[in-house]
Amino acid sequence: MVIEYDSFETSKKAPFGAVVEGTEIDFNIRVHSGNDIQQVILHVAQDGHWDTEHQLQMSQGSHAYRTKFTPKSSGLFFYYFEVITNQESCFYGCLDGGFGGEGVIYLNRADVQMYQLTVMSHVETIPDWYQHGLAYHIFVDRFNNGNPDGHINNPKPNSFIYGQKSDLPMYIRNNKQEVVRWDFYGGNLLGIEKKIPYLKQLGVTVIYLSPIFEAMSNHRYDTSDYLKIDPMLGTLADFDRLVKKIHEVGMHVILDGVFNHVGVNSRYFNQAETYDTLGATQSKDSRYYPWFNFTKYPQEYDSWWGVTDLPTVNKENVDYQNFIYGNDDSVIDYWTSRGIDGWRLDVADELPDEFILGIRQALDKYPDKVLIGEVWEDASHKLAYGKRRHYLEGGMLQAVMNYPLRKLIIRVLTGDLKPSEWWLELMTLKENYPQTVFKYNFNNIGSHDTKRILTALHGDHDRLEQAFGLLFTMPGVPCVYYGDETGLTGGKDPENRAFFPWDNQNVNLQQLVEQWYHWRSQHKWIDDAEFAPFYLNNFGIGFVYWQDNKKLLVILNTSCNQHQINSNDLMLDVVPSDLAGEIKKCLTNKSLEHGEFKIIEDF
Amino acid sequence: MVIEYDSFETSKKAPFGAVVEGTEIDFNIRVHSGNDIQQVILHVAQDGHWDTEHQLQMSQGSHAYRTKFTPKSSGLFFYYFEVITNQESCFYGCLDGGFGGEGVIYLNRADVQMYQLTVMSHVETIPDWYQHGLAYHIFVDRFNNGNPDGHINNPKPNSFIYGQKSDLPMYIRNNKQEVVRWDFYGGNLLGIEKKIPYLKQLGVTVIYLSPIFEAMSNHRYDTSDYLKIDPMLGTLADFDRLVKKIHEVGMHVILDGVFNHVGVNSRYFNQAETYDTLGATQSKDSRYYPWFNFTKYPQEYDSWWGVTDLPTVNKENVDYQNFIYGNDDSVIDYWTSRGIDGWRLDVADELPDEFILGIRQALDKYPDKVLIGEVWEDASHKLAYGKRRHYLEGGMLQAVMNYPLRKLIIRVLTGDLKPSEWWLELMTLKENYPQTVFKYNFNNIGSHDTKRILTALHGDHDRLEQAFGLLFTMPGVPCVYYGDETGLTGGKDPENRAFFPWDNQNVNLQQLVEQWYHWRSQHKWIDDAEFAPFYLNNFGIGFVYWQDNKKLLVILNTSCNQHQINSNDLMLDVVPSDLAGEIKKCLTNKSLEHGEFKIIEDF
Repeated sequence: MVIEYDSFETSKKAPFGAVVEGTEIDFNIRVHSGNDIQQVILHVAQDGHWDTEHQLQMSQGSHAYRTKFTPKSSGLFFYYFEVITNQESCFYGCLDGGFGGEGVIYLNRADVQMYQLTVMSHVETIPDWYQHGLAYHIFVDRFNNGNPDGHINNPKPNSFIYGQKSDLPMYIRNNKQEVVRWDFYGGNLLGIEKKIPYLKQLGVTVIYLSPIFEAMSNHRYDTSDYLKIDPMLGTLADFDRLVKKIHEVGMHVILDGVFNHVGVNSRYFNQAETYDTLGATQSKDSRYYPWFNFTKYPQEYDSWWGVTDLPTVNKENVDYQNFIYGNDDSVIDYWTSRGIDGWRLDVADELPDEFILGIRQALDKYPDKVLIGEVWEDASHKLAYGKRRHYLEGGMLQAVMNYPLRKLIIRVLTGDLKPSEWWLELMTLKENYPQTVFKYNFNNIGSHDTKRILTALHGDHDRLEQAFGLLFTMPGVPCVYYGDETGLTGGKDPENRAFFPWDNQNVNLQQLVEQWYHWRSQHKWIDDAEFAPFYLNNFGIGFVYWQDNKKLLVILNTSCNQHQINSNDLMLDVVPSDLAGEIKKCLTNKSLEHGEFKIIEDF
Repeated sequence: MVIEYDSFETSKKAPFGAVVEGTEIDFNIRVHSGNDIQQVILHVAQDGHWDTEHQLQMSQGSHAYRTKFTPKSSGLFFYYFEVITNQESCFYGCLDGGFGGEGVIYLNRADVQMYQLTVMSHVETIPDWYQHGLAYHIFVDRFNNGNPDGHINNPKPNSFIYGQKSDLPMYIRNNKQEVVRWDFYGGNLLGIEKKIPYLKQLGVTVIYLSPIFEAMSNHRYDTSDYLKIDPMLGTLADFDRLVKKIHEVGMHVILDGVFNHVGVNSRYFNQAETYDTLGATQSKDSRYYPWFNFTKYPQEYDSWWGVTDLPTVNKENVDYQNFIYGNDDSVIDYWTSRGIDGWRLDVADELPDEFILGIRQALDKYPDKVLIGEVWEDASHKLAYGKRRHYLEGGMLQAVMNYPLRKLIIRVLTGDLKPSEWWLELMTLKENYPQTVFKYNFNNIGSHDTKRILTALHGDHDRLEQAFGLLFTMPGVPCVYYGDETGLTGGKDPENRAFFPWDNQNVNLQQLVEQWYHWRSQHKWIDDAEFAPFYLNNFGIGFVYWQDNKKLLVILNTSCNQHQINSNDLMLDVVPSDLAGEIKKCLTNKSLEHGEFKIIEDF
């Protein structure tokens, strides 16, 4: 038995990738068998609804079987094929691991891995500024202290300030490994304001700030008061001025919204009774008591991953929902109406869809805002707490933090992924994600939650330059984690949160990153262009953008050797054939040094 | 057999206590026995020289046996008596524990505990200002930051600054309990200068500063550079101005000299190679290599109590000796010639006698200086590293930190010691110490190395007031540990090193301590007066000073009840009989509330 199917090929499945509900999808499969084929069936069902699966008998052509399927509602669908002959039955599904493209034959139905079909309620709207955004991620305590005399605003009780900005970050823990005092460098809003010229010069158009509301910790993911700028960072006036100045130079700003949990000593939970509010731990009469789920009042309660410093809020609670997004003066309204341009939702995959929807609806009262979610995996099929998450199917998140892309970049550069694997994983993302998500995802090669990119690349500066090259040329909104542009190193938290070394910058690297920012700003057309990745045998990767009469080709020799490109090295499966021919013509017999990163326009 | 001897009684041993070499001492012992007494022998020998012991046959009076002994050299002597009858022999020595006063009969020579006889080379000279000194001990990082804007001078690399002055101190350690970053509040010399009016008002006349030379730690007992003020504390000019201002208001200042060991990253050891000198760990050609004792070069070396951060210096090394005190521009000379009034020697009992002698001789080039040693026990007979220490026998230390007195005060106030035990221990100190040491010892009820006095007294403010009363009325130079006067609490290091709470002072307590400082300054005559302690049965303690026609009586009800004093409650054994009669007359039938502290003059 030979079965030919490839979800990436529009001759086999059209249209490619995610579709809007109501879109008719054409399936076309070829089957060769020595036996008498009796039936070919497309099994397709909405996620979790196999009780109502569709069994579509495919009509026969010459060796080909076709059928059409029109998903009627948004969500994930999964499908596979069944071939019944007079001798045997077999099944055809995707490669183990959930990859799109060509699949494999399974002999037992129970073993079949199914293809994913993403169905959107509608095509998401994406603000123009964000489509062309060139972002920069600031971990606020670690970026810049704007006070002329260097003093730290309002240090918190029982905290420590680093003796010098060049000190490496560390946690101050007790024997039980609990953080007993928070460590601060004292970066603040005025510090960011003073570095607007630096960011402008670099080419940044979108600043993404780590949380800035009052909190106990240096990262401020433990919100104490959603309606107050942390006094170490400055005042509300400082915030307003910062937003104004960012806008004055044509940049935008995104805040970090942490709504899944609050700080244990927040105004709402108030375990240490530092706030004058009646907190949830203080009395069951507290307004905030129903926000939380106490398993044994008041000492035991649900918390984020068991971290008792971070009591989880019950997002089903209507009062909390209204507080965050429902009321006219909700948290979302309060800050969005002050002019910010969007939100990044912390642990978005742990927020109920309705909660994200509520935030998006609040946000949509204001024009041109963006809502981005923190998700670590392929966000199109994320299951969290046993629930499939629908935030990417329209009307909720417009993008997610693209950690899968970061992994693809690092793994292909360090040799962990072969070029063909890189291509397959990238194509699978392209297939699974709504097209707007793939195009405008919030890309990164490092964040406050990962190793520094230079460290992830084992300190290899050539690979670092290639990583920046990929970040700035691949589809999506590139976002540089502060300090990566000057070569900061460090493993995971806390090492990745060193203070920006203003006195000890890597000027060469900064110039290179600046060139990339400017290159991308001068190639805005690729943001909305057609895109296809390919690979060069076992030694290189590439991709092509095209739109109207514009074309742009990127290739990178990922191997450790120089290579001469032969025609049959070029694996151009998903590139339209005309264009594939042009690429072949352009690249064949070209020589590529090891690590060479080439951009070719107008070939 | 009944033997009567009491080393505290001049009828039994005269003169009382320590003597200068060449002084004839009269011993008088009474023996009653049913048997025929054949010989009574005084066995006396210099410490460690029992091979050349004196066996002095005592001559008989009526039941009394007498002899004289003249020690010919300074040092400790030990003695006991042997009584030989026709039936039995027995021995008479001091009470187990080495107490003076009445002793006990021992049946075996090997069991005998011997009386101590301290012999000085000469009577020590004590500067007048120090005799009347009223001291205050400042742990410099924790006292006051004098910078008007509160900034910290030159924070060290890889250190932490407390977020707020009110934060409780803590060590920042790793899993192995090693200190990984030093914690600072940022007290400095200018801060002390600015508090001179406060100290003057309190009544302080002597300021004792914790180490101020460049070091890595907040305590600075790990000297990095003996010839440099730590940059966090200020400049040499700040130091000079501080000394000048202290002198301008009639106060004196004592520095902390830490010469037993240095910091591992000092200019001398230079393990981290932060200094431009060639350190001992860097090369055997280093000038400093012979200063240290390497057991395996360069990674293993002798260090203070095994703390590898504190390599021990070889005090026999002539180059080191010259550097510290031998050269004209030695460390001692450098700072003493800038005007300081004395030194407190850290771990004095770990310094060889010759080293202390050398320091004293360097110091004696300048008039009216004082040299005080850190010793924790009865310093008259301290054995350290198997060697008896002779620093109190003339020409070396003039005083030691009187930790035994601190213990006596705390233990009698908390009920750990009965009044009679308090008396016996105090009398033993009085007997063992050279008279100048007992009179001018450097007294404390707390330091950077002990619990805070209020914490040692279990938070009892009445006991705290009594402890201050005893500190300021007992013989010696009282020294208040910064912050004790405002009721700081805390266990041992680091809790006892909190920042002075300038914003949250206990004004009542401060006024009380101020009153004590002033009381003592108005009773200078007691500094050189005769002194005798006594006790009130099981409920109180007391002591009397007298000189010419002046008398002063202090009594304290240490019990938890009110007591009426009966004539036979008064245990006045060592008070001259005329004076004892006057005390009896004065106190009999007086009522004493529990905790009542009474001073009676001119009774």
